[in-house]
Amino acid sequence: MIGTGFMGRMHSNAFSKVNSFFDLDHKACRKVVCARDGSKAAEFAERWSWQEAETDWQRLLDRKDIDLIDICVPNHLHRDIAVAALAAGKMVATEKPLSMNLEQGREMVDVAVKSGKKTMVWFNQRRFPAVTLAKQMVDSGALGRIFHYRGTYLQDWTISEDAPLGGNAFWRLDVTEAGSGVTGDLLAHSLDIAMWLNGPIVELSAITETFIKERKRQDDPDTIAKVEIDDASQCLVRFANGSIGTFEATRYACGRKNAHEFEINGEFGSIAFDEETPHELKYYNHKDESSIRGWRTISVWDAKQPYMEHWWVPGMGLSYEHTFVHAVADLLADLGDGKKRVPDFSDGLLTQMVCDTILASAKNKQWMKTGL
Amino acid sequence: MIGTGFMGRMHSNAFSKVNSFFDLDHKACRKVVCARDGSKAAEFAERWSWQEAETDWQRLLDRKDIDLIDICVPNHLHRDIAVAALAAGKMVATEKPLSMNLEQGREMVDVAVKSGKKTMVWFNQRRFPAVTLAKQMVDSGALGRIFHYRGTYLQDWTISEDAPLGGNAFWRLDVTEAGSGVTGDLLAHSLDIAMWLNGPIVELSAITETFIKERKRQDDPDTIAKVEIDDASQCLVRFANGSIGTFEATRYACGRKNAHEFEINGEFGSIAFDEETPHELKYYNHKDESSIRGWRTISVWDAKQPYMEHWWVPGMGLSYEHTFVHAVADLLADLGDGKKRVPDFSDGLLTQMVCDTILASAKNKQWMKTGL
Amino acid sequence: MIGTGFMGRMHSNAFSKVNSFFDLDHKACRKVVCARDGSKAAEFAERWSWQEAETDWQRLLDRKDIDLIDICVPNHLHRDIAVAALAAGKMVATEKPLSMNLEQGREMVDVAVKSGKKTMVWFNQRRFPAVTLAKQMVDSGALGRIFHYRGTYLQDWTISEDAPLGGNAFWRLDVTEAGSGVTGDLLAHSLDIAMWLNGPIVELSAITETFIKERKRQDDPDTIAKVEIDDASQCLVRFANGSIGTFEATRYACGRKNAHEFEINGEFGSIAFDEETPHELKYYNHKDESSIRGWRTISVWDAKQPYMEHWWVPGMGLSYEHTFVHAVADLLADLGDGKKRVPDFSDGLLTQMVCDTILASAKNKQWMKTGL
Amino acid sequence: MIGTGFMGRMHSNAFSKVNSFFDLDHKACRKVVCARDGSKAAEFAERWSWQEAETDWQRLLDRKDIDLIDICVPNHLHRDIAVAALAAGKMVATEKPLSMNLEQGREMVDVAVKSGKKTMVWFNQRRFPAVTLAKQMVDSGALGRIFHYRGTYLQDWTISEDAPLGGNAFWRLDVTEAGSGVTGDLLAHSLDIAMWLNGPIVELSAITETFIKERKRQDDPDTIAKVEIDDASQCLVRFANGSIGTFEATRYACGRKNAHEFEINGEFGSIAFDEETPHELKYYNHKDESSIRGWRTISVWDAKQPYMEHWWVPGMGLSYEHTFVHAVADLLADLGDGKKRVPDFSDGLLTQMVCDTILASAKNKQWMKTGL
Repeated sequence: MIGTGFMGRMHSNAFSKVNSFFDLDHKACRKVVCARDGSKAAEFAERWSWQEAETDWQRLLDRKDIDLIDICVPNHLHRDIAVAALAAGKMVATEKPLSMNLEQGREMVDVAVKSGKKTMVWFNQRRFPAVTLAKQMVDSGALGRIFHYRGTYLQDWTISEDAPLGGNAFWRLDVTEAGSGVTGDLLAHSLDIAMWLNGPIVELSAITETFIKERKRQDDPDTIAKVEIDDASQCLVRFANGSIGTFEATRYACGRKNAHEFEINGEFGSIAFDEETPHELKYYNHKDESSIRGWRTISVWDAKQPYMEHWWVPGMGLSYEHTFVHAVADLLADLGDGKKRVPDFSDGLLTQMVCDTILASAKNKQWMKTGL
Repeated sequence: MIGTGFMGRMHSNAFSKVNSFFDLDHKACRKVVCARDGSKAAEFAERWSWQEAETDWQRLLDRKDIDLIDICVPNHLHRDIAVAALAAGKMVATEKPLSMNLEQGREMVDVAVKSGKKTMVWFNQRRFPAVTLAKQMVDSGALGRIFHYRGTYLQDWTISEDAPLGGNAFWRLDVTEAGSGVTGDLLAHSLDIAMWLNGPIVELSAITETFIKERKRQDDPDTIAKVEIDDASQCLVRFANGSIGTFEATRYACGRKNAHEFEINGEFGSIAFDEETPHELKYYNHKDESSIRGWRTISVWDAKQPYMEHWWVPGMGLSYEHTFVHAVADLLADLGDGKKRVPDFSDGLLTQMVCDTILASAKNKQWMKTGL
Repeated sequence: MIGTGFMGRMHSNAFSKVNSFFDLDHKACRKVVCARDGSKAAEFAERWSWQEAETDWQRLLDRKDIDLIDICVPNHLHRDIAVAALAAGKMVATEKPLSMNLEQGREMVDVAVKSGKKTMVWFNQRRFPAVTLAKQMVDSGALGRIFHYRGTYLQDWTISEDAPLGGNAFWRLDVTEAGSGVTGDLLAHSLDIAMWLNGPIVELSAITETFIKERKRQDDPDTIAKVEIDDASQCLVRFANGSIGTFEATRYACGRKNAHEFEINGEFGSIAFDEETPHELKYYNHKDESSIRGWRTISVWDAKQPYMEHWWVPGMGLSYEHTFVHAVADLLADLGDGKKRVPDFSDGLLTQMVCDTILASAKNKQWMKTGL
Repeated sequence: MIGTGFMGRMHSNAFSKVNSFFDLDHKACRKVVCARDGSKAAEFAERWSWQEAETDWQRLLDRKDIDLIDICVPNHLHRDIAVAALAAGKMVATEKPLSMNLEQGREMVDVAVKSGKKTMVWFNQRRFPAVTLAKQMVDSGALGRIFHYRGTYLQDWTISEDAPLGGNAFWRLDVTEAGSGVTGDLLAHSLDIAMWLNGPIVELSAITETFIKERKRQDDPDTIAKVEIDDASQCLVRFANGSIGTFEATRYACGRKNAHEFEINGEFGSIAFDEETPHELKYYNHKDESSIRGWRTISVWDAKQPYMEHWWVPGMGLSYEHTFVHAVADLLADLGDGKKRVPDFSDGLLTQMVCDTILASAKNKQWMKTGL
């Protein structure tokens, strides 16, 4: 694993838990963790039971005892590491978004396809049991013809002008490390799930905005840097299936901490999800008898619901961190039976295509095709 | 109508609306409104389109153009007016609770039965469409065998030590006018609905408490009066059908303004109501398919739901005042076809029996039979 | 009053209640109700206590005992009646939207301005106490700089292919009577409130869709008519104050009956409203102490909150119909003191400008200025 | 650790995670897991990284490399193991309830006190961050004088007559293993938290009920056994501080899976918790400005809130399993600095005293003192 930040912790937790809860043919072994700062890497390895710490990711590529490289570093490093790792015959998992832009993404897919190696993009949020249940319901036809899709991903952590640019969490505000702002960081989740549930987005019109135009750099507080990422991103879309949708992501929605929400309206019913209460899925079934019909709050904690048989008992919901355990469990299951449960680089590329179209549409102020 | 306080306004509103919304054989005519203060009575009559104002209720009894006496004055006056009016051959409607105590209640029922005249106790809260829907669901067997009943009625308007005793709303704190505190004022609603839905309460254990023991009198702020009503009242009960329940009423639940709630748990499902969102009924149907089962929020605003065909369109719920319109509509419908839709004095007596048993049990600290 | 449909009932209810609850210098007198069908008009007058029934609205214009003409008929009739009534020296109130299109709207405003007569557009939804409270909070600066506005108006009553076109409620599907679909019927409410709260919308990009392209005519079920209104309408907007927003209206959101919602995100806090629980306003105050900060559900039923001192007591919320009472109360108050509380034709025109721009943008697939 | 059931898994998970998230002087080492079935014990040890598996708990007592015995077996075994382990100089943690009855509990406390060894009862539910936040708020005086406490713990897993008695989860229905039914299993949690937050319960009146009187034995389906535990348990209580309360636990509340709820009403505000959305605490602050006052939903996921600095970022709540990690973290912290963060046997005895009084009161149908 390369990277020891927020996602490094999250992935380590997932690797450490998966085989206690899931019966799988393969095991997640915490071989080597890699970070530029050697003492940090060592401390992290100790804390999370990695067998070794390393400072140069390239030294991992030649080791025969390593099967998979997991990339948890900022976006501008995804391409180089992934391409090198695939070339070295490793499987590769990378945090989302796939890449800085479409061009990089295409290269990564090309190399992956040629290598024949398993890849994964950590779109962990598909793995909320409630979201996977939504997938099952849509696929079963429970909603009938789909009319509307609404996706929002709202946070509020950059409202303050004092939030700096660069470093730790704040690399997300630096376009040279992040590639884009909320489009790639947040909306990518919404779009990935939307297309997983409702098929390709074929055209769109978008708007982006940067509310605070200049910020101090974290590493050099005397320097005022221009903020070049999108603070907010919104679009209207048409899906291939004839439905229409709206999407919005922002880090300026005061009081919304991780409000990743979606709602789908179909002919026979609707479903809605809000990650701030992630163990719940709202469902309206028009086929219920009319006088006692209403929106249900399905609490997703029953053994018959996705992933739940592996955990506790009804009444005990899961939370954010468990989605990463599920992603690893699915990846290991894929390795066992050769089926495809996890989104790979090709899936990541679909989202990258929409993200790039959003940024272009917002810049050009015109409707654009996504190419899907 | 006798009384021009809060309930006088509420009833006037109901009388004025009922025949615009409901097609009925009988009409509610606002003949005479009566209050001790002549100018208040006149102003009230003008505002609410009563044909005449009156200051002495006894002068109403001989009038041939008056069919029904509606009692909206404090509890200590219910018995005298009701008994006299029935004796004079009038129909009588009275606000709840029926009377100051069981003895008065029995007398009122006796006189009513002998008179053969229609009576009504304004247990308006049965007439929330959501509550009437609950009644239909329970009666249909949708819940199966009942195990649990939970009823609470929580308010917070007497927390302040500055709230006086006596006068306007504050007569409710004066035991000589109110008879009891929250037991008769609030819990009576909960108990009436509970026995309507789930049958007689046969035995109970209760506790009451008066948190603020002394208050100024509103009419004489220099006088400190002892507070002799119950500020809070709680009981454990057994119903005749084998289910058990808890009840609680208080005016010391900070932030709960009119939190009249109940929940019923049965073999096949549960329902729950909260008057603070009165157009909703929560319903859990265990027979729904298990992976998509959940508590439904039934919005009661569809034409097929109780009372709703008379009002607007789906999406437009009703509120507190409408329950009084429904009560009048039901009363007028009863007069039309002779069926019994409204709770009469006999029904009011059942609740009075339980209320009196609660007060006695709390005093004696022992389980007691209600006599039902 | 011209028209005896859904809105005719709603307005009649408002006129009948306003002077019982509000102390005003002026009275709402129910003089004449007008409908083409004489027996319907007479029945309606009887039910709602109108003094007279009439079949030809033009006969109302010469009567000296009529001060105000209230228009409750489909949109294609607004202009002719309003222009004639203003020319005859009457005050005019009309249901929203103001007109079929911008051209008609401009004419109506011109005539109104020349006449010097009071006009009102019934944007009743500003008059939910919770919405007026939102207005007070925004104006007080409680939210600080505004970043985001989100407005949706979701219904589901036309999902069925069996819903006909034309007649009763279904005139809303006939472009010749309605002018547009959800844009004028639903989004007009959202836009009116948005600009009232957050100022002018200056540019936008829109999409509209008609999901069911053909329907039977209600008056002639053998005729299949092309559906030419917009079933759904969505747009991205920029406000003059630098904030950005999304809007959406549809009649295809299964389970959403009257989900008129908005959310505003500002620098210091956020507020959110959902008409399906209309007595509540959600509020997040970033200035609350951080460890106990959270979204509040403000129940708008306290005497200090807008309009509420005129009604009941805390714990008893209002509902849809009361917004119309408030609109009349405000109109009568305007007549008393000459202040401006109600939206007039000029305000209606602002919304019409945005609606027309939406339809044009959706047709042309391009960003457009609204002219505001 | 002795026991490999539901709680054995839960504790193992907690032991495995605690030192990755918390910086502590002590480490949780998974030395030996013990279960009667040797192959089960071995499989469990492998899955959860215990160093050794054992079948006889008594063999653990002499080992010098074991500091603490953790008891995760049914209630009837708590006393013997705890007493022996303490006598052998071990620290002891046991699942709740402390014991089968008050007599056993007193013995355990006596032995513990004499041994001078650290003990803990796993009242994990104090360790929801929202519950600990409630504790901080009450202790800070934010609620002022307390008037009311309401505690419920509702489940529904024994409604079916087909649920057997004995074995796995069903030992909870066997009085010889469980001691009591919901009183010890569920209400013990409610009572522990209630007395932690609001002080001792001094007297009470209770009712219990067994709805299904006979069940098949799991180990011998041809044998019908009498059900001797309480299916439901309710009581009215007085606290030492003058407040009054109601408590209820049941396994017959259809649709309530793990509805552990409490509400406290004080002079200046109220708080409410529901374990089914465990990352939220509801709070009403009467001191907020009246027109914008309301119940807040505090999402407990901010670094300044209890335990949260150790986990992820705002927007990512915790769930049931994390309460066990917190319990271990607190226990290890106690060992480090000698302070007392965790409930010990003496605290467990307080709850046992109330539980025993409840069962006696229900049997005798009278108000009883708890002895506290």
